[in-house]
Amino acid sequence: MAIYSVSATAPVNIATLKYWGKRDVSLNLPTNSSISVTLSQDDLRTLTTAATSDTFEEDTLWLNGKLESLQSKRTQDCLHDLRQLRAQLEDEDKTLPPMSKWKLHLVSENNFPTAAGLASSAAGFAALVVAVAKLYQLPQSMSELSKIARKGSGSACRSLFGGYVAWEMGELKDGTDSKAVQVLEKDQWPDMKALILVVSDIKKDVSSTKGMQLTVATSDLFQHRIAKVVPERFISMKEAIKNKDFNKFAELTMKDSNSFHSTCLDSYPPIFYINDTSKRIINLCHLINTFYETNIVAYTFDAGPNAVLYYLKENEDKLLSILNEICSNITGWNDKFSKEQTENWSNTYDKKLKNHFESFIVNYRDDIDKHVTRVIATQVGSGPQSTEESLIDEVTGLPK
Amino acid sequence: MAIYSVSATAPVNIATLKYWGKRDVSLNLPTNSSISVTLSQDDLRTLTTAATSDTFEEDTLWLNGKLESLQSKRTQDCLHDLRQLRAQLEDEDKTLPPMSKWKLHLVSENNFPTAAGLASSAAGFAALVVAVAKLYQLPQSMSELSKIARKGSGSACRSLFGGYVAWEMGELKDGTDSKAVQVLEKDQWPDMKALILVVSDIKKDVSSTKGMQLTVATSDLFQHRIAKVVPERFISMKEAIKNKDFNKFAELTMKDSNSFHSTCLDSYPPIFYINDTSKRIINLCHLINTFYETNIVAYTFDAGPNAVLYYLKENEDKLLSILNEICSNITGWNDKFSKEQTENWSNTYDKKLKNHFESFIVNYRDDIDKHVTRVIATQVGSGPQSTEESLIDEVTGLPK
Repeated sequence: MAIYSVSATAPVNIATLKYWGKRDVSLNLPTNSSISVTLSQDDLRTLTTAATSDTFEEDTLWLNGKLESLQSKRTQDCLHDLRQLRAQLEDEDKTLPPMSKWKLHLVSENNFPTAAGLASSAAGFAALVVAVAKLYQLPQSMSELSKIARKGSGSACRSLFGGYVAWEMGELKDGTDSKAVQVLEKDQWPDMKALILVVSDIKKDVSSTKGMQLTVATSDLFQHRIAKVVPERFISMKEAIKNKDFNKFAELTMKDSNSFHSTCLDSYPPIFYINDTSKRIINLCHLINTFYETNIVAYTFDAGPNAVLYYLKENEDKLLSILNEICSNITGWNDKFSKEQTENWSNTYDKKLKNHFESFIVNYRDDIDKHVTRVIATQVGSGPQSTEESLIDEVTGLPK
Repeated sequence: MAIYSVSATAPVNIATLKYWGKRDVSLNLPTNSSISVTLSQDDLRTLTTAATSDTFEEDTLWLNGKLESLQSKRTQDCLHDLRQLRAQLEDEDKTLPPMSKWKLHLVSENNFPTAAGLASSAAGFAALVVAVAKLYQLPQSMSELSKIARKGSGSACRSLFGGYVAWEMGELKDGTDSKAVQVLEKDQWPDMKALILVVSDIKKDVSSTKGMQLTVATSDLFQHRIAKVVPERFISMKEAIKNKDFNKFAELTMKDSNSFHSTCLDSYPPIFYINDTSKRIINLCHLINTFYETNIVAYTFDAGPNAVLYYLKENEDKLLSILNEICSNITGWNDKFSKEQTENWSNTYDKKLKNHFESFIVNYRDDIDKHVTRVIATQVGSGPQSTEESLIDEVTGLPK
């Protein structure tokens, strides 16, 4: 019995121009184009091993050590498309093993705790599609594969590339022009760093799929967002990225996060993803940018209260000497930053800074300290990678 | 020495279609029409005595016992317009005392604590304009006077009427068509009640004047709100009021509050007036309306976290038996509702209700209990009234 297996990793991406709204729910076709930054797989990635054999009896998925259903329509759609592409290859070359007819074993693991509250579905579907595509030796480009990942989870299509990625919404009904493309490679603007502030909340509001549909159906302002605001911003943001203009990139990123959450609030009934702690982080970022008289930090919030802050490496000390006054005790802070660095920040937090941030710190430090439960410091990263690290025992075909 | 004096009261109004945005800052001309409900003066009113005499040396205002400046441009604009109308009368009838040339003493008192955090400027400017207009024996209609009050504080123009009031934005540059009109008198729909939940906050965000200007200048979604959303809603809401269709009125009121706060969040930097406690109240209202399968309560929020809930008298027991489970310990609750009533509500809070609201109460009652500091129970009320109750000593011309 031959077991064929391949492993691949895929990254998390965080949108800076938000995907919110589907024009086709079944195909995950969006109402607007979006842009994201791919984060480093050193900190956040899904590793998936895909194995196939004529002896496997059932498509099976083990996710983070637990057996999961592969019966969801979204996963089935992805596997169906991949098998179809494989079948074409097999038609053309009869010597190929007929994998398109065999069942798959998929084993998947994230390198970050689920407790971080980060949507892992993008990395998950991207890793699944890439691993199976490699297993099937498919010749398709990443943009082509992104259309398949998109059917699994819309934003997964953007995880097929590293660096700076655009998801072009497309116009066609069948979605064949709705795909991810590279705006800029990681190495073309390598200094983008990211801090994820994980914010606790009593209860999660509606799921993003339900939320999107509610917004599309009920928000009056949403129609204007997709018809006018986002199309213009899509062009400007790509330009800002190509020009490596952080000040502009930051402004557009912050505005778009706010615009997206505005349409959530304008839904009926309204949807709230950001909370009072999120707002304090927003206010803090504006306070920091005001102090430096240019945008050195940008916040963005997905469908939850967690903040993702983007900044350039050259401004790390400026930014972190302030955040260190507010967040220094939070889990994750010391994983990335040495004692020497944090001591240095304490020393550079001078009187001028103290005066500017005093009232914020007096009013809000305790709240942030209480509600920000974890910090993940990371940066722009690469797209999906092949890896020798396998999660499947090649003899039994089961998870190691 | 003759001292002429007149006293008048004016009500607070709370918009159900929000005024947000000025097209002319100096004349307080709005970017959109708005609608409000005037609240009962039994609970919330400003009483102003206006006195004049040729012996007074200076225009002087005492507000809630404290000497206040009358030099603000807005107040001066109001007094200037009133004096001009008086001067016309004096030109026509030379026997009239030449009050238009005399100084004014104004004494003003609110019957509600400033701590309630309610904008009192609307009632204040309305009472000032009405008191001086009566002192001057001006023949102008309330709509005409509303244009003068508008110059003091935009929303003050709506406090010139009781019941249900529209502020027609007008089109003219000089603002002579931007005025309040009656939609429905209080007695035509007398059963509208209101609960004000005063929500504490660490710090007030930007003032509404500054906030409006920021939104007009920076929010992309705002332009759509004033061009499309509000004009349509203005017609629908007037219709709902005329039809006494609470279900529709409530839907439009809630949507418009959310739309207004969406444009605040879409401003750059974003403005936050509602906080997590406000959001819990919003969620509670939707939960109540879902339970009753029709809108029995509507929330609305001005430029702050306080909630104003509108409901019909016929639904008071339904609504308050639920709120009584959450807010019964809050200051003001027992001022309006007898022990018998609240006991009755406890008895009608049955198992079905308990099940529906259990999770909300478990998660949020403590938070609401902590952050809602006061409840004011009131209802739709009358417009400005003359009163014999004077705040000025008629011999000295000074506050009593």
